[in-house]
Order: sequence, then structure tokens, then C-alpha cells
Amino acid sequence: MPSTTETPVFTQYKAFEKLQKLAASPLDLTKTGVLNPERVRCMVAESAGYKMLYATERVTPEVVEALQELADEAGALSWMQRMQNGEVINYIDGYDSERRQVLHTAIRDFYDNPNTSPAAQEATAKEKKELERVKAFIDKIDIEKSFTDIIFIAIGGSELGPKANYLALEHLLKPGRHVHFIGNIDPDEAARVLDALDLKKSLVVVVSKTGSTLETNTNEALVRDRFEQAGLRPDKHFVVVTGEGSPIDKPGRYLERFHLWDWIGGRFSASSAIGGLLFSFALGYPIFEEFLRGAHAMDQAALSSDLQENLPLLGALIGIWNRNFLDIQTLAVVPYSSALWRYAAHIQQVDMESNGKRVDRQGRAVTFDTGPIVWGEPGNNAQHSFYQLIHQGSNPVALEMIGFRDSQYGQDLEVHGTTSQEKLLANLLAQSIALATGQPNENPNKTFPGNRPSHILLAEKLTPHTLGALFSYYEMKVAFQGFIWNINSFDQEGVMLGKVLANRVIERFVERRHPNTGAKSFPLGDAYLYHLEQF
Amino acid sequence: MPSTTETPVFTQYKAFEKLQKLAASPLDLTKTGVLNPERVRCMVAESAGYKMLYATERVTPEVVEALQELADEAGALSWMQRMQNGEVINYIDGYDSERRQVLHTAIRDFYDNPNTSPAAQEATAKEKKELERVKAFIDKIDIEKSFTDIIFIAIGGSELGPKANYLALEHLLKPGRHVHFIGNIDPDEAARVLDALDLKKSLVVVVSKTGSTLETNTNEALVRDRFEQAGLRPDKHFVVVTGEGSPIDKPGRYLERFHLWDWIGGRFSASSAIGGLLFSFALGYPIFEEFLRGAHAMDQAALSSDLQENLPLLGALIGIWNRNFLDIQTLAVVPYSSALWRYAAHIQQVDMESNGKRVDRQGRAVTFDTGPIVWGEPGNNAQHSFYQLIHQGSNPVALEMIGFRDSQYGQDLEVHGTTSQEKLLANLLAQSIALATGQPNENPNKTFPGNRPSHILLAEKLTPHTLGALFSYYEMKVAFQGFIWNINSFDQEGVMLGKVLANRVIERFVERRHPNTGAKSFPLGDAYLYHLEQF
Repeated sequence: MPSTTETPVFTQYKAFEKLQKLAASPLDLTKTGVLNPERVRCMVAESAGYKMLYATERVTPEVVEALQELADEAGALSWMQRMQNGEVINYIDGYDSERRQVLHTAIRDFYDNPNTSPAAQEATAKEKKELERVKAFIDKIDIEKSFTDIIFIAIGGSELGPKANYLALEHLLKPGRHVHFIGNIDPDEAARVLDALDLKKSLVVVVSKTGSTLETNTNEALVRDRFEQAGLRPDKHFVVVTGEGSPIDKPGRYLERFHLWDWIGGRFSASSAIGGLLFSFALGYPIFEEFLRGAHAMDQAALSSDLQENLPLLGALIGIWNRNFLDIQTLAVVPYSSALWRYAAHIQQVDMESNGKRVDRQGRAVTFDTGPIVWGEPGNNAQHSFYQLIHQGSNPVALEMIGFRDSQYGQDLEVHGTTSQEKLLANLLAQSIALATGQPNENPNKTFPGNRPSHILLAEKLTPHTLGALFSYYEMKVAFQGFIWNINSFDQEGVMLGKVLANRVIERFVERRHPNTGAKSFPLGDAYLYHLEQF
Repeated sequence: MPSTTETPVFTQYKAFEKLQKLAASPLDLTKTGVLNPERVRCMVAESAGYKMLYATERVTPEVVEALQELADEAGALSWMQRMQNGEVINYIDGYDSERRQVLHTAIRDFYDNPNTSPAAQEATAKEKKELERVKAFIDKIDIEKSFTDIIFIAIGGSELGPKANYLALEHLLKPGRHVHFIGNIDPDEAARVLDALDLKKSLVVVVSKTGSTLETNTNEALVRDRFEQAGLRPDKHFVVVTGEGSPIDKPGRYLERFHLWDWIGGRFSASSAIGGLLFSFALGYPIFEEFLRGAHAMDQAALSSDLQENLPLLGALIGIWNRNFLDIQTLAVVPYSSALWRYAAHIQQVDMESNGKRVDRQGRAVTFDTGPIVWGEPGNNAQHSFYQLIHQGSNPVALEMIGFRDSQYGQDLEVHGTTSQEKLLANLLAQSIALATGQPNENPNKTFPGNRPSHILLAEKLTPHTLGALFSYYEMKVAFQGFIWNINSFDQEGVMLGKVLANRVIERFVERRHPNTGAKSFPLGDAYLYHLEQF
């Protein structure tokens, strides 16, 4: 390990100073002629089926060059290679930390240019066996027609990615199959799902890497109880995906058990057996394979030293420009695709849990802004919701828009000379221009100040392959930003205090229900319970 | 109209200066003993079935007093009274603007303490007739059993509120009834809905106040085409809710027409005939009435001069404290209720479209921050997603959490001594404490800085009545903030430029599809189309 005195500090990179100077007078996109057709045609990068159109970012060639230097100084590509090689990069220097590999790229490294490091190969081989077991398990269900419905019990990273991905491809749902999710500990979530179901034909997938997730364990107990009340044996309906040897990794308790590895973080686990089970049951294993292929293609692009072919790195650098140099706190992710309607929630989790951090890899409190607040809804809907603020509000918002040339269903109608898909694309492109250029007006209330930065990720069509590539784009982008900021994007210590205090309040509820069980006192918690009792 | 020189400026109120001084050293919630049981017990306000617990905001009695002074100086209550009385308050002084009344409170003023101003009474009478027509229309369907499914075609304010409200009460869905939404112009959204439906038994509700909403008009055409292809007559299946005399207010074209008034903004229209139709078809008219009753109760609370009984005003003031004095850019709305899973998207629209503004009522560019960026997801899910950043990230986020003592379904299970509902509440309360107090640790990566402000809206149970009150809470809160900032919360000029440019790009698509139709040139748009053609 390098000693603390020699380790890099984001704000001390030479390129940082250069970028700060450039940011003193950033490109003014509202000036006549600045955003011109030539700029739009030239400012494009490409990876794995996606173009990134970034003419509407406030960057000049000098800025892009300085950002490239920043990436070089931080050794961003070398970190990415080390990550994909299976080196231990999930750590904080000099303090107790997870000290793990970060190998979500290995679990889809089954295609061209496989990683040759022994650690990565070992991981890939391990996952390959697991996915073969997944395939065999689902094949058997397909043949025996034993289940029509899948109930997916998981929360956070184990739910958001698989769910957003599944919804993005719901048009490929196999006839007669149905998918349900139970994540929230709110009992109404389970009730709503279970009331509408024929449990006899339902497969339950329980996902918890640690096996000790309060919400998931509780929901499993609740759903098991319902099965038992219905005279059904949970061990014939429930499967588990968990870490080997976890408290719920119990033979006999499940129809089948699948494993996660400690080198796959929860929020990076959607391409593991978790997503494999869901995709294979609902859409078929070949769809999952195509998804993995797409993700692998973007993983490979993330290793490219040519910024014009490395979308994740370019996206990361533009994000850093907007965040640290133009002082924009939030990133709105707006997919112009109804199928991606839960994607912002997934990206929100991947990004904010990874990079919402206060210390660097040496445990020093950072003096600069780390990960942005990520939020979003699909376009065009968003145009009728929060775009008012984005165009005319007090704080600029950085936008990442996503679009596709073709629709998924191909069911469209020409109205007044264009199809709906064309109208959708027209809105996407027009907003990018409008946000950048703005427009003066004699009426100050109709004035658009412009200089609101955005870029567009554009692909031919949202398929399993391009979905996989998009999915990996965010995983890789977030990792790059962490490498450049010199923070550890792979732990989540910030969620612990809430869990600890929740358990103390739970003890007070136990005490209320079962007095004299010796619960620890917690006057602050009791003061809240007082309000509950006052209704 | 008052002349420009005499009109108020937010930053020139005496209370503004006082608050700025107080904000120089805001209350430190991390200090031992500051957040104590007494503070939690005392800092509570109540309206219309909700308690607001705000001990975990960084406010002292002096701050609350100064905020009250700010509201007084701005005449917040008098503005609210004028709004509810039906005065013309949707205007910008000295410039072309809508110049309308803002009377969404009148369309539920059917119960106690009716407003006595003639303008409001006229509005209430008008809406009453419309709702009677809604009821009669649905009664007939109930008797004839003519429809099982409702397809709701609307976007933005016409969709988000009705949808979020409906989903919040989905447990009350009538047996055999199904609800579908088509909002996005993306043709895949319509395809996904229509592919799964029996059109013969489907009622289509088309909502557009102006009658010229591109997305809604296009989706109506698309769905009409599908009905015609299926050999069904749209005039026997389609109803419309629109402004009187709008381009789609055509007799003969619809089974029935219902009207909106120009004094109901789109984002404030969910308690009009729009919501009435949806609620009555899906849940029954009495449920809608209860919802209106709840909304009316909170409308009344918004007129109270006692801050402890006026939750919307208190919420508005706390929001202004966090936004303008503690410099927090974003507000996360986190309902600890699975049923409110789309509520943040609705509030996001109501708030950001209303208050994401750059000029005040006199058309002067503001020199302070107006409406915050609003985002959120339900808890506990959010704890496993973005809470990492909220606890340890660079920028503080203000939190509004919502919780209920009881679940909706009442289906729960005691596991380890507590029910799921209790575990949910324990998490809600614990997070509020954890965010406020933080926690030191020898390991800097496990240190929680605290002082993250939050408050909790708490009610007994999410019923039609409490949902109505919650719904009104946000409408009233947003209006109060606009009154205090002296901005016009009721227009949305910021969405126009995007629409204009989208039409120009649409023309280019038309030209591509039908050359030589004389479309205006738009080289910037063509440069984007070039990228689409390169796949």
C-alpha cells in the first residue's frame, strides 16, 4: 500500500488547476453560432452500440483535453484494468474496511477478449457454473410447467437493477408468465402482491447476499406463512440467492440454492444469478445471454485508451466537469423510452450509494464534491413535470438523456406526417438544443437563460444487448468517477447508523408488545412512540 | 395593481435579515442533549389528521418566530385567502400573462365552512354540476356493466396526480375493474397497454385542458385507430375531459364530455372531474367524496393563523429556511408507505413546475433561490438506495418523510416480537434521529456528520380522507412558498421553448418522410437527424 503522504489528492492534480481556470469562463452555449451543426456532427463518441452526443455540454476541446489529463494523472484506466483483473480495490487505506475484489465484470466475461488474469478467470469460471445451474433449473420449470408466477423478494441493489432491467424488456415476457416484486418492509407491499396470486403456481426467489437483511428476512417469513396457511410447502416453492454459508444458506429449506460471491457488491449484482433467474424465468435464458453480451461489450469499451471509444470514461469526465468545476449538484437521468421508466431509480442507487462519500481512500475527509444527487423520470413525461425548473429555475441541473431510433413494439401510427417515435425523438433533440441555447424575450417571464448542459446517449433500439451495454455504462462510469476522486466506490458504511438505531426502536416496539423483555431504554425513540400513541 | 417600486422583494423583508443572522450559526443537532425527548414531544403541529414532527429540523423557537414574521410581512395568509376567494392571482405585473383565478380549492368546497365569496361560490356550483354528471355517468356504467377497464390518456399534471392518488388507494379497487395509463408519446407505452386488453370492455378517458397537447392528441389518435381496427366505434368508448370549447370538445365524437375551467391549472386538477372519473370508475364515487373531504379539511387548515394548526404554512416556512438560509438545493420526499410509491413524482411536478421560476411577480429576475429540486422514493427502499449519500455525501438534502401508524391491508405477521408495520415505523423514526444527530467514530469512513434536516408527516392510516389531506398539503404548501417568494406559482412559461423547437424538428421528420412539403430549414435539427441516420 502507498503511504498516506504520497497518495494522490483530487484537488492537487495539475489538470485540476487547469480545469479550474477553464471553468472561470466556461463555454457560452447561448452565443450565436456556438452550438452549430458542425459541432453537433463532430462531438460524438461511440461504444457498444451507443453514440454519446455531447455538443450541448459546456466543453471545448481544451476542456476535454484537460479532462483526459485528469484521467491520466489519476490513473483511471489502470484502476479500471486492476478492477477487472481482480485486484483488491475495495478498501480504505489504514482503516478497517472490506478489502475485497470488485469483479462484477468477471460474471459476464464469457465472450470475446476474456480477461487473462488468474483471479478474474477463477471468478468467471465460478459464475459460469452457477449460471449453468440457473439455466438447468429454469429449463426444468419450462418442461414441467410447474410455475407461472415468480415472486422476487429483495431490496436495494438486489431489487432495483433486476427490476429496472426486467421492465425494460417486458415486451419479451413469455406468454403465461408473470413477475412480482416484494421489496419494502411495509406489509402492504406483500399483501398487494399476494392477494392477487395463485400461490400453487408461484416460485419465490429470496435474495440477500448477507442473509441478514431485515426487510428481506421479514418478507420471506411473511410469504412463507402465507404459503403454509394455504397448505403449501415453502421448500417446494422457495429458492434462495445468497452468499455461501450465510444464515439463510440452508439445505432442505429451499427448492434450490444459488450463490453470490463477496466480490460482487449488492448494487452490482443484477448480472449475476439474481438477474439470471429473473430473466430466464420471465424472458428466457437466451435473452439473459444477450444482455450479458451487451454488458461485456461496454466493460471492454471501458478499457479503451481512446476517449472517443470509451463512453463510460467520457461520461465520467463530463460528470466531473459539471460537478466539480461548474458546481452542479444534481444529475437528472431522463430516458426518452417508456420501457426505461424505472431506470433512473436503479442508476440513482448505483451512483449515490457508490459515490455519496465523505472520505477518500486514505480516510481523509474530502474537500471537494463527490457523487451527485441522481434523479429522473422518462421523457416526454418529464417535460410536463420538472422541465419548467430545469429551464427557468435557480439551480442548473445536468441532464443525461437516453434515446433510441426505433421503438420496441414497432406498433406506431403516422399522425400529421410523422410517427409517435419520430415525435418522441424530436422532443429529445429539441430539448437538448433548447436547454443549451436558451432564448431571449422582451417578457422576462418568457426568457430562457440557456447554458443548461446535457448530452444524449443514442442507440438503434432498446434490445437485450443494448440494455446490457447501458447497464454496464453506469457501473463503469461510477467506478471511473470514484477512481478519479480517489474514493472507494464499493462500500456503503453510510447506511449503518440508521440500521443500528432502527434496531433500538424495534426493541422499544417489542417491549410495548411484550413488556418486561428487558429491552434497552431509548428515551428519544420513546418520545416518537408517544406521538404514535396520541392518535 | 401596485407599482413596481412599492412591491415587496423577498430579500428586503425585515425577517429575511433576521433569518440570515440566525442562519450564520444554525442549531447544531449533533450536540449532546440538543435533540432530546422533550424537544421531540413538543415540536409537533397538527392539521387535518396529520402531525408534523419537526424536532429534527435545524430550527429554534427564534427561527420559527422569524419565519412567522416572514410569512406575516409577505402577507402569506392574506394571499391564501385571496386565492381561495377567487381573486385573479395568476399574473405577472406589467407583462403579458395568464391573468386568471386559481380556484382548485373551490372544486372541493362542498362541506363545512364553505367560502362565502361570490367568485368561489360560483366556481363551486359549476364544479358540483360537473361532478354530478360524473357520478351519473359512472352509475350508469355500474348498472349496465358496460366496461371493466379504463384507459386514461393524459400527461403531466393531468396524469401524475390522478395516477399517484389512484395507486395510493389501489387496495380499494372494485372487483373486476382494471386501470391503465398512457402518458408518454413513446408508442411502446400505448402498445404495452393495448396488447393486454379486451377493447370491447374498455372505456377510454382522454384528458387535455387545452385540447392541443401533442402527446395526448397523438395517443388518442393511436388508440382510436386500434379501436377502429378492432371494428369498434370510438364514440361508444371514448370520453373527454377538456376546457369548454377546446379543439377536442366536439359533440358526437365522444360518449360523454366533461369540462375543466381555466381557473384550474393542470397540475392542480386531480381533484376535478379528471380524478372524479378515475376514482369513481375504479374505487367508487363515495371514495372520491372522502378524498375531497380530506383535501377540503387541509384547504381550511391553510387559512388558520395559528402556525401550529397550519401544516402547509409551517411546511412552506421550514422549506424556505432550508432552501434560502441553509442553502439546501434539493428536497427528498420519502413516504414510508409502499402505496405512495408514485407520490414523489406527483409532488415533484406540483412543486417544480410551480416554483421553478426566475422572475418575481413584477417580472424582475430574482436574486435568491426559488423552488427546490424535488425527488424521492419510498422508504425503507430508499435506505438501501440513496441514503448513503444523504448520510455521508457532500451536499445536505432536506427530507420530508411520511408515515402511518397502521397499514392499509391489515395483513401482517409478528416476527421476532414486532410486526412489519412496526419495523417500518421504527426505521422511519430511527432515520430521522440518525440524520440529525450523526455519530462520531475513530474510523472516518464510519463517521456520520449529522445535521441533516428532516421532518415527519404522520397520520393514523392512509385512507381516502388522509390521502386527500396529504394531496392538498402539497398544493397549499407550494402556493405559500410562491406567495412568500413573491413569484407566480401558477404559470409554466418555461415549458414553451422546448415545445416550439420540438415542432421544428418534427417538421424536419415530416420533410424526410414526405419530401418537398416545404418544411422550414433547421440545420441544427438536421445535424441531430444525421446521427440517427448513421446507425
